[in-house]
Amino acid sequence: MNVAVEKALVVLSGGQDSTTCLYWAIDRFGRENVSSVTFDYGQRHRIELDCARRIAEHAGIDNVCLPIDTFAALGGDALTDDLIAVSDPTGAETNLPVTFVAGRNLIFLTFAAAHAYRHDIGHLVTGVAQTDYSGYPDCREETIAALQKTIGLGMDRKIEIHTPLMHRSKKETVELAVQLGAMDAMGLTHTCYNGMQPPCGQCAACELRAKGFAEAGVADPLLVAK
Amino acid sequence: MNVAVEKALVVLSGGQDSTTCLYWAIDRFGRENVSSVTFDYGQRHRIELDCARRIAEHAGIDNVCLPIDTFAALGGDALTDDLIAVSDPTGAETNLPVTFVAGRNLIFLTFAAAHAYRHDIGHLVTGVAQTDYSGYPDCREETIAALQKTIGLGMDRKIEIHTPLMHRSKKETVELAVQLGAMDAMGLTHTCYNGMQPPCGQCAACELRAKGFAEAGVADPLLVAK
Repeated sequence: MNVAVEKALVVLSGGQDSTTCLYWAIDRFGRENVSSVTFDYGQRHRIELDCARRIAEHAGIDNVCLPIDTFAALGGDALTDDLIAVSDPTGAETNLPVTFVAGRNLIFLTFAAAHAYRHDIGHLVTGVAQTDYSGYPDCREETIAALQKTIGLGMDRKIEIHTPLMHRSKKETVELAVQLGAMDAMGLTHTCYNGMQPPCGQCAACELRAKGFAEAGVADPLLVAK
Repeated sequence: MNVAVEKALVVLSGGQDSTTCLYWAIDRFGRENVSSVTFDYGQRHRIELDCARRIAEHAGIDNVCLPIDTFAALGGDALTDDLIAVSDPTGAETNLPVTFVAGRNLIFLTFAAAHAYRHDIGHLVTGVAQTDYSGYPDCREETIAALQKTIGLGMDRKIEIHTPLMHRSKKETVELAVQLGAMDAMGLTHTCYNGMQPPCGQCAACELRAKGFAEAGVADPLLVAK
């Protein structure tokens, strides 16, 4: 089979990071060679799915939404509890939905690779980062490298995983978004842990986002829009 | 967290191989330390799920059934076609459902690992084999080794993947099942590609199974029961 290695698939969550990655991919591979995938895994904030769809539309990129009903079943011991308290790597207590599952990014990227395989796409792009708050073990560079090798062996095809934000701080991610002309799209993103739009401005995610924009000396289009 | 590394989770499909693995795990880890997981991914033959449940019950082992609705969506280009023709590694044309997805075993094992993580289980057992017909790239030893490394990094926990059948022929698998006292359970398994019980005896899967039993000089309890 002739693999068009120039095509790229972006894992688009509707957040600031994956939106920046979408524009990175457009810059790197060309708009006509980029598509996006969003996972409907029962996330508490359904607004994320709408944001992803609208961001892709705004960027002129296809967006496929794939369901994953497994996470909710895996978390099913606490079916009556909507939330479980989890400490995020900054030490702050964060409420994560029961659909948070260890190794979730491994699943997202493997399903993305399966979609890429079927559509002869040779590149995946994901917004995972080692820096700042998102220090989950499945976001680390060596995990992604191991996963890329596993997918290559398991599907017998080279599918490269790009992580343009891996070593960027939030400030640097904002600067990259500006440089890539992604600021209009940034006004369509969703970050708030409390699922509010306009964002609550109080939760850890809102605070981190605000800090990144402040340090980059850029106004957040999401707040300007408000 | 204190990890009970002596507990094992068997990926149980309801077929001959995973059933043999269940008894291998019972022998190795002790019945009280073994549980099983079965995936309901929209397989054409729903009888597999019943078989898995009944085999686990027969063996006195817990069985959790986890849904995965993603494969059907990934195969969604051919929603109107129930089947796609795929050549299996023996060169024979086999009808696989559209839910067949590249790297499917990577997904099964990663979800199994997520379940294991949550329940402090340190060992996974799967019936994948390099030998005979099941030579899919995601069943190969080096793929499984890469996946084990990826899961270890991505979940920040050592979860060992055991593949007792990796280098066994069908004949040797039958011999192992006899040795482990798994023959009664073997009468509850399901192999037939055509979803028939009693098995059709004509399809590639039935033929391969028959060959294994014949070479081992053992009567297939499934056919005796018929």
